Amino acid sequence: MKTFSLLIAGCDVLVRDGERYVVRPDHDIAVRGNRIAAILPTGQIEPTASEACIHAEGMLAIPGLINTHTHAAMVLFRGLAEDVPIESWFNDYIWPLESNEEPDDIYWGTLLAIAEMIQSGVTTFADHYFFCDAIAQAVAESGVRAHIGWAVFGHEGEAKLKQTAEFAARWQNGANGRITTWMAPHSPYLCDELFLRKTVEHAKALGIGIHIHCSETPDQVVLSLKRYGVTPPAMLARAGVFEVPTLLAHGIALTAEDIALLRDHDVAIAQCPKTYLKLAMGTAPVRAFLEAGLVVGIGTDGAVSSNTLDMLEQMRLLALDQKQAAKDSTVMPLQTVLDITFRGSAAALRAADLGELAVGKLADIVLLRQDSARLFPVHDPIANLVYSAQSSDVDTVICDGQLLMHRGRLLTIDLARVRAEVSTRLERLSRRAAERRIATYPTS
Amino acid sequence: MKTFSLLIAGCDVLVRDGERYVVRPDHDIAVRGNRIAAILPTGQIEPTASEACIHAEGMLAIPGLINTHTHAAMVLFRGLAEDVPIESWFNDYIWPLESNEEPDDIYWGTLLAIAEMIQSGVTTFADHYFFCDAIAQAVAESGVRAHIGWAVFGHEGEAKLKQTAEFAARWQNGANGRITTWMAPHSPYLCDELFLRKTVEHAKALGIGIHIHCSETPDQVVLSLKRYGVTPPAMLARAGVFEVPTLLAHGIALTAEDIALLRDHDVAIAQCPKTYLKLAMGTAPVRAFLEAGLVVGIGTDGAVSSNTLDMLEQMRLLALDQKQAAKDSTVMPLQTVLDITFRGSAAALRAADLGELAVGKLADIVLLRQDSARLFPVHDPIANLVYSAQSSDVDTVICDGQLLMHRGRLLTIDLARVRAEVSTRLERLSRRAAERRIATYPTS
Repeated sequence: MKTFSLLIAGCDVLVRDGERYVVRPDHDIAVRGNRIAAILPTGQIEPTASEACIHAEGMLAIPGLINTHTHAAMVLFRGLAEDVPIESWFNDYIWPLESNEEPDDIYWGTLLAIAEMIQSGVTTFADHYFFCDAIAQAVAESGVRAHIGWAVFGHEGEAKLKQTAEFAARWQNGANGRITTWMAPHSPYLCDELFLRKTVEHAKALGIGIHIHCSETPDQVVLSLKRYGVTPPAMLARAGVFEVPTLLAHGIALTAEDIALLRDHDVAIAQCPKTYLKLAMGTAPVRAFLEAGLVVGIGTDGAVSSNTLDMLEQMRLLALDQKQAAKDSTVMPLQTVLDITFRGSAAALRAADLGELAVGKLADIVLLRQDSARLFPVHDPIANLVYSAQSSDVDTVICDGQLLMHRGRLLTIDLARVRAEVSTRLERLSRRAAERRIATYPTS
Repeated sequence: MKTFSLLIAGCDVLVRDGERYVVRPDHDIAVRGNRIAAILPTGQIEPTASEACIHAEGMLAIPGLINTHTHAAMVLFRGLAEDVPIESWFNDYIWPLESNEEPDDIYWGTLLAIAEMIQSGVTTFADHYFFCDAIAQAVAESGVRAHIGWAVFGHEGEAKLKQTAEFAARWQNGANGRITTWMAPHSPYLCDELFLRKTVEHAKALGIGIHIHCSETPDQVVLSLKRYGVTPPAMLARAGVFEVPTLLAHGIALTAEDIALLRDHDVAIAQCPKTYLKLAMGTAPVRAFLEAGLVVGIGTDGAVSSNTLDMLEQMRLLALDQKQAAKDSTVMPLQTVLDITFRGSAAALRAADLGELAVGKLADIVLLRQDSARLFPVHDPIANLVYSAQSSDVDTVICDGQLLMHRGRLLTIDLARVRAEVSTRLERLSRRAAERRIATYPTS
């Protein structure tokens, strides 16, 4: 029998027992290459001299968190668009700011975002942004896993769309298989039906999926009915988008008919509740999604709306917002929250090898300290994880069998260098010139 | 000129500039005894050999956080009542569990809670709980500041009420002035008008205030109208409660008339949004409170509803819940959030010397690390504080001029001992015997 490459010794482990998540105390996790080889009570795995050993007594091992929707490099603008309405957020802040971006900015901004995600236990992120070769480079160097789509607007035209497809072809299965690519048209409100049809052609030719924003607000639905005669999902269906695997971000204003349509086409939905709360966008009908059998995952969205890329906070906010909106504290119970966070987020990315600590799954493992007073006593370790843990409890992060952070120290990113590089760019990146923006949010 | 006792060197400082909060980089804070003696740009205060010096380069100094409503020792039950309706939360969980409590449990539970609060930057808490001599002892030993009221139900009778007043007399200005006492009748739904009138007599005789729950749900208002013919605040007014300083917890279901009544009597309101979200209790009309000129502070409530005693999280949730409920992302802007958190919370406790870093104020100072990737860049340090900081960023805590935590190490509490003492009690404390509870939540 081959030896292991890594042994994580003495931790509590979050595993699935049938349909339920449970925490099993005092277990060892053995990793061989980039896969989990064994999870057994401490002492049953014989250590040898050849493997690395992480002493994890008292820690909680959870699957690496999966951020199903973000715009990572937007951390560059963190704090620049506070307390503004959504139309202004787009037209007066985000899109003018983004007109300043160049590939090198995206490289350093993405590294900063990856550092934050590793520090908060995220090992996989689905990015929807620009200059994606720079993103892929940052992913390759830092050791995380990413699903990357080059965001494109209809007004940029078919030549630009083709370039985004060329990126997808260039990096599909890149970084030792850690990179997956998607087509990423921005949204039905900024990509017309013909443009989307062309996007689908590229996706089919490449055998990849489409990651797109949809039905973020009721106003967008009104606009779609006026412009296309149908709701945004119905327009996407008409354009053929759902003929390829589709990841739909937000869906706050989806109708019951939309939900049935999405279910019939196995469309997955990413939920980013901190953004919805902060921009007062309303609460997505997540229980209706689940009742219909839709796959739901969690994402952080960009840091100019969510301020952080903290998946534990998003998980907690999903539960709190759903309970409040339903006027029912029994909805979105702990088990459902974990199911969305881990199994749902993996399924949303069509990544069946992720989101669970089990033999044969990819070795994306996060160790959380449990020594702060806020995590004691442990009457219910899952309640502690969902409602008391913080991203800063993350101690050690493993992705694809490789250590990315150990004892709070980043091993693949020189954060001081990243901060210095970002600092030199901030003055230029913060400019907002009148009428200079990459797109315009339609309000009627 | 007298020398200082403590110099905090090189930090960024959150101060008020007129009506606005600003962060001034690279300042020193000098403490003399238990007061702030100077806040000046780094280098302008001449250090001498006699004072202790804390090197705080890169950190953010904020006023010690003020938790205006909690039941600290309920940390003993953290995680024991998840995903349940509020009536069941009281009758099937909290009040049966609390029937197990003895004074020693409260002592150790309160120490655990204080450890958590110090770790998260809280230097003052308003406690509403039982066996308050044990609470006062824990406060005296651990060095924090507390406003303590012995919770009492009408059915416990006037002799018990008198005992709570005797506690208040015994500990008023205790622990070198760090303890303030209140009368703490539970609520208008569990204390009748006569009982409240007797409570007011005690409060007046002692020259102290009343801390009470009120109008937590619309159902409670219906019950009050049925039982007393008036809303809960009107019943409190009729009983004379507002003739003494009053701190009212929650007030989610207050009417416009209630708000006007409270304003006319300078009643302050404590807001604990994580509990409201988790128990799906609705959103308090906080903007109406502020428009009416009411003092509003923030609290954590107990850890069986909020799971943590984390004021930074409550602050953030207050803003997010208010924006979502108002369907307007411009409400509850950053400056208002800070004003409630610091100035409002101090005013809610009638503690004008707290809640601000300024010369002459009490030296309750918290230093937050700002080195995590999640807090960079610093386009807006206040946005970072409100939406990105975590309680685990707290590095150093000073209360009344004394160091309680330094570089993450608790200096006044032996947390390992506290955990061991709590552990021996958990099995007994977790029992829920049928029909054994300290009170019954009325549902009709």
